[in-house]
Amino acid sequence: MKCFDLRSDTITKPTEAMRKAMYEAEVGDDVYREDPTTNRLELLGAQLSGKERSLFVSSGSMGNLISLYINGGRSNEVLTASNSHIIQHEIGSVAAIAGVLPIGIDVPRGILTASDLAGKVKRGCYDMATTTLVEVENTIGGFCYPLENLEEIRDFADSHQLLVHMDGARIFNAQVATGIPVKTYAKYADTLTFCLSKGLGAPVGSLLCGDEAFINKALTIRKMLGGGIRQSGILAAAGLYALENHVERLQDDHLHAQAIASALEKAGWAQVDKLGVQTNIIFFTVQGYEATDIVKQLAAIGILANNEGPMVRLVTNLDLSDEDTDALCKRLETFTLGNN
Amino acid sequence: MKCFDLRSDTITKPTEAMRKAMYEAEVGDDVYREDPTTNRLELLGAQLSGKERSLFVSSGSMGNLISLYINGGRSNEVLTASNSHIIQHEIGSVAAIAGVLPIGIDVPRGILTASDLAGKVKRGCYDMATTTLVEVENTIGGFCYPLENLEEIRDFADSHQLLVHMDGARIFNAQVATGIPVKTYAKYADTLTFCLSKGLGAPVGSLLCGDEAFINKALTIRKMLGGGIRQSGILAAAGLYALENHVERLQDDHLHAQAIASALEKAGWAQVDKLGVQTNIIFFTVQGYEATDIVKQLAAIGILANNEGPMVRLVTNLDLSDEDTDALCKRLETFTLGNN
Amino acid sequence: MKCFDLRSDTITKPTEAMRKAMYEAEVGDDVYREDPTTNRLELLGAQLSGKERSLFVSSGSMGNLISLYINGGRSNEVLTASNSHIIQHEIGSVAAIAGVLPIGIDVPRGILTASDLAGKVKRGCYDMATTTLVEVENTIGGFCYPLENLEEIRDFADSHQLLVHMDGARIFNAQVATGIPVKTYAKYADTLTFCLSKGLGAPVGSLLCGDEAFINKALTIRKMLGGGIRQSGILAAAGLYALENHVERLQDDHLHAQAIASALEKAGWAQVDKLGVQTNIIFFTVQGYEATDIVKQLAAIGILANNEGPMVRLVTNLDLSDEDTDALCKRLETFTLGNN
Amino acid sequence: MKCFDLRSDTITKPTEAMRKAMYEAEVGDDVYREDPTTNRLELLGAQLSGKERSLFVSSGSMGNLISLYINGGRSNEVLTASNSHIIQHEIGSVAAIAGVLPIGIDVPRGILTASDLAGKVKRGCYDMATTTLVEVENTIGGFCYPLENLEEIRDFADSHQLLVHMDGARIFNAQVATGIPVKTYAKYADTLTFCLSKGLGAPVGSLLCGDEAFINKALTIRKMLGGGIRQSGILAAAGLYALENHVERLQDDHLHAQAIASALEKAGWAQVDKLGVQTNIIFFTVQGYEATDIVKQLAAIGILANNEGPMVRLVTNLDLSDEDTDALCKRLETFTLGNN
Repeated sequence: MKCFDLRSDTITKPTEAMRKAMYEAEVGDDVYREDPTTNRLELLGAQLSGKERSLFVSSGSMGNLISLYINGGRSNEVLTASNSHIIQHEIGSVAAIAGVLPIGIDVPRGILTASDLAGKVKRGCYDMATTTLVEVENTIGGFCYPLENLEEIRDFADSHQLLVHMDGARIFNAQVATGIPVKTYAKYADTLTFCLSKGLGAPVGSLLCGDEAFINKALTIRKMLGGGIRQSGILAAAGLYALENHVERLQDDHLHAQAIASALEKAGWAQVDKLGVQTNIIFFTVQGYEATDIVKQLAAIGILANNEGPMVRLVTNLDLSDEDTDALCKRLETFTLGNN
Repeated sequence: MKCFDLRSDTITKPTEAMRKAMYEAEVGDDVYREDPTTNRLELLGAQLSGKERSLFVSSGSMGNLISLYINGGRSNEVLTASNSHIIQHEIGSVAAIAGVLPIGIDVPRGILTASDLAGKVKRGCYDMATTTLVEVENTIGGFCYPLENLEEIRDFADSHQLLVHMDGARIFNAQVATGIPVKTYAKYADTLTFCLSKGLGAPVGSLLCGDEAFINKALTIRKMLGGGIRQSGILAAAGLYALENHVERLQDDHLHAQAIASALEKAGWAQVDKLGVQTNIIFFTVQGYEATDIVKQLAAIGILANNEGPMVRLVTNLDLSDEDTDALCKRLETFTLGNN
Repeated sequence: MKCFDLRSDTITKPTEAMRKAMYEAEVGDDVYREDPTTNRLELLGAQLSGKERSLFVSSGSMGNLISLYINGGRSNEVLTASNSHIIQHEIGSVAAIAGVLPIGIDVPRGILTASDLAGKVKRGCYDMATTTLVEVENTIGGFCYPLENLEEIRDFADSHQLLVHMDGARIFNAQVATGIPVKTYAKYADTLTFCLSKGLGAPVGSLLCGDEAFINKALTIRKMLGGGIRQSGILAAAGLYALENHVERLQDDHLHAQAIASALEKAGWAQVDKLGVQTNIIFFTVQGYEATDIVKQLAAIGILANNEGPMVRLVTNLDLSDEDTDALCKRLETFTLGNN
Repeated sequence: MKCFDLRSDTITKPTEAMRKAMYEAEVGDDVYREDPTTNRLELLGAQLSGKERSLFVSSGSMGNLISLYINGGRSNEVLTASNSHIIQHEIGSVAAIAGVLPIGIDVPRGILTASDLAGKVKRGCYDMATTTLVEVENTIGGFCYPLENLEEIRDFADSHQLLVHMDGARIFNAQVATGIPVKTYAKYADTLTFCLSKGLGAPVGSLLCGDEAFINKALTIRKMLGGGIRQSGILAAAGLYALENHVERLQDDHLHAQAIASALEKAGWAQVDKLGVQTNIIFFTVQGYEATDIVKQLAAIGILANNEGPMVRLVTNLDLSDEDTDALCKRLETFTLGNN
């Protein structure tokens, strides 16, 4: 029985063509800024995001951390959704390393509006941290940030002297799902991180985008974190290949996710928010069962899912073909829940 | 017209008797641990809290910070109410200095139950901070923590290997309002801070209470923060005087607060939650007015209040006598709202 | 037998007159900046240092830490003598809290020249911290910084875009010993800390001096450290009294120190660098004995000294009168070394 | 004219065979610990270092930082040579991120003896950081740590309850130069980092070695730094190839370095410490010239060198063949110094 791994889109393996690109990559010492492939990738990152420059970093977490470190800062606050990656999934680096206090705001699906921020900006008070930054995550839980939210958040930020960082780990999924270019999303943010791994399928790395002055500081902080690497062109080649060849195909992941959501509905034993499947992530619950139990039962039939608090999460990805999806859907439809 | 300062109970001035206690204080070099008055105060703090030892610190913020630093720690999380002092009023030191990530939980009046904590403890996950600490604040917004909440939080903490810190800046107000001794509250916490300033009326200082090993570490961290002081006995004498003479009189502050709440109700222009006045803090709103505007209007009639987000806050304190309270109540009752 | 405590000048007890000043101090809530005595003290601190403003802080360590935090900063370096207080005696707060890397330079007596700094300034290198600050300590080990050193260090700093912080914990000893006003020393530094305790005899506190923008930031960082205190006027009154009455009398401490050094020389069993006694600190060694042993032997005859690495340290202070000094000298001269 | 790049051994490009190994690497998601190639590399790292486990990290700086973070810690001190990489070349991360205070000791060539450490261990003092760690760098400036130094440092550490971290970025150069296996060096340290890039020629990465408990913590801190990467097997394959094929050939680099040192001597215009060339690094000065000037003059004849303070540094590496070395030596011998 073939096993389908839908725990995350981070698990994809480089394709043959991507491997070839890495194999043939022209390289240099990137700590000296002499890696031509990395330089090309960073140029492309700047173009796609519409920012002056971009910087290759080892992970989205590192990109977020650098932005929080530089644009958040100590004795300051960042406003963000309480389920954001920077609060929930980065081992507290926002506090322990960036030293900035995250104020988590409970909002449906993690999508903020300007009115969620209203009244939360602190400045000039003798016993309060100064709010310096708003952080938005796009997509978050697979949902695309509505452009109007970003517009009003940008306006709010401008009128309150705040900067905006966008954690766009999966922003290309948003681009493909909504037709809104990454560049358009990015113009509402001062800095943007997006991942070359995850849906785009590169083995390692993210790009951190911003203006010249920011990226110059980011270079220093990346090195301080131990994130300066040498012949990064090997990895950058995969990133370039992904950006040039794997963006459009995210549509496949989205279609697969919808098919799976339908199959779950059809199967009857799962409660899935079908409208909610905007990109490549499916969340569902099973009445009377803990998520951890369902994850185990699915693993037993060769479907790897993630336990996300009360919900089970499935993430479609490059390693799941049309045929795989069909087989997976059948398996879900014919599955009978065991005892819990 | 006499001006009544109800911005906070931090504004009280030492009484004549307290000044005399400071004047006569026997002192030594407390960095060498040789200040007899400080040593006596710390002994009393230990007795009152039922902990092995206590340590004089410059402020409640410093006490909280030291506890977060030692028992929270980097790459870890502390669970607390989102309106807690450590999140809202300590300039982000929880992140910038302690390096611990605070997870703010939205709960009515800032009072947590064990079920608010359920599902929020993280441990052993590859991309999550480890939850190490629960922080409760008693009183919070003038409200006393129900003992059953503390009991279940303690049980929850024990069953999840968490420590509990209590920010008891105004815990003697809770003792006086509920009849529950500080020591009883404290037994649900591993560490406790309480203030000698605020309602107790000492000019400076708090006590941080915990076990021997904790206080030994706290001594080091206090020194690292620059909080080691020399002839602290001058201040400790005021603290001793406050603990020996000013605890029972908190009842006066509470009665004054109730009288003021009644006056506001009678006056008709303010919406005050009378049931909510458990100790010495009154919150109210005025329909159609911003808090900032009401604060200004009250200042114009010699009543100093604090702007707390959407609400106006009045805090009764040692410097407000029975007569003052009567006069203040009359002033409130006869006050006519100006234009906003 | 009267015991003479020369472990440090931090051990002095407030005089009757100083106690009276504290007793009568007009106070207010300094966190609201409304303590009139603190405000007067801070004004005097600004005048004496020739800086725009000064800020009362709990300790010299806190003053240094705030300056390192603001003007040093993360991913940056501070150049200082390797035996400086910030490296040796502040529990590593320079690293753990300020986050700045101290580069300790081995120089005789801890006194730097511009040529000691030459070649040590880093800027713009891909893998190096940026040098932002020079820190000098005056007095250091009891020695006064020669003005020409400060002049050339200031020139060096200016030509290398560095700021200068002066740890002037005992700078009034330098003023009295050399006749050079604190204001003159201070003009070579951007920020200065000096202690009101130590030789000046106040029980607690130091002043941090700098320009308006710096002190505004310092207020925030002081609060973040937990160093914001309420009716600080009690302590400020002692500081004011000390600055107004105890500066000239430091000359007594210096004469006592020289007398003690002479007595030690006369006694024969100690090796003291008499020329080295510029202010109130005497260092000596005893051939064939560890410092720790000598400290014990002296304690047995009622003389408390400090063990400082290979040396024994004696510090004269306000609590040691002319008569005490005479008695102490006799005791030293007639002392016979025990077995080690 | 062929250009020879001797700025560092970090500039080497992966060989054809190494590229092939990366091309064919079996991969998985290493954040889930499922990358088989990374797992194999980490197993080999453990075997070579004789430690329980090893962990792939993006750089030697990250490996050092993690060790300083875990085994150094805040309010603590690490003793190290003042010219060590952690002080000089890691952007102050030892302070800004690890929060540990480095005490730099001036020692010839950066090689410590136990007697250099004597008297520098602090513990239990009220105003001093606690010494927790000794850090040694092997090789340092191209010099191999004498085994007897490591033995006595280990003994010293044990008798003072200190841990030892070895920055073995180029420890395989030491193994090849001295015949002492890495495992032997490593047994004197609790934790060890060594680089797969540099002399070994992998494009990216280092291994951090230690016991099980340490590596478990290191996994968390690596993730917190943003250093957790996904299909790391691509890079690990190069590292495996390097460890299996490029260790012995370091001997070539050493012979090349000696040849170059001889050529410089023969040329007459440079002062090189020939005895000092133990591995692949040559330092020299040129009388009457600044290093920066010589670096420029050499660049003009196609020899890229590094400016290291007062000295010029050349580092032989995998990309410099026997023929290259011959040509380079001739070029140096026939070179005429220009005006400075």
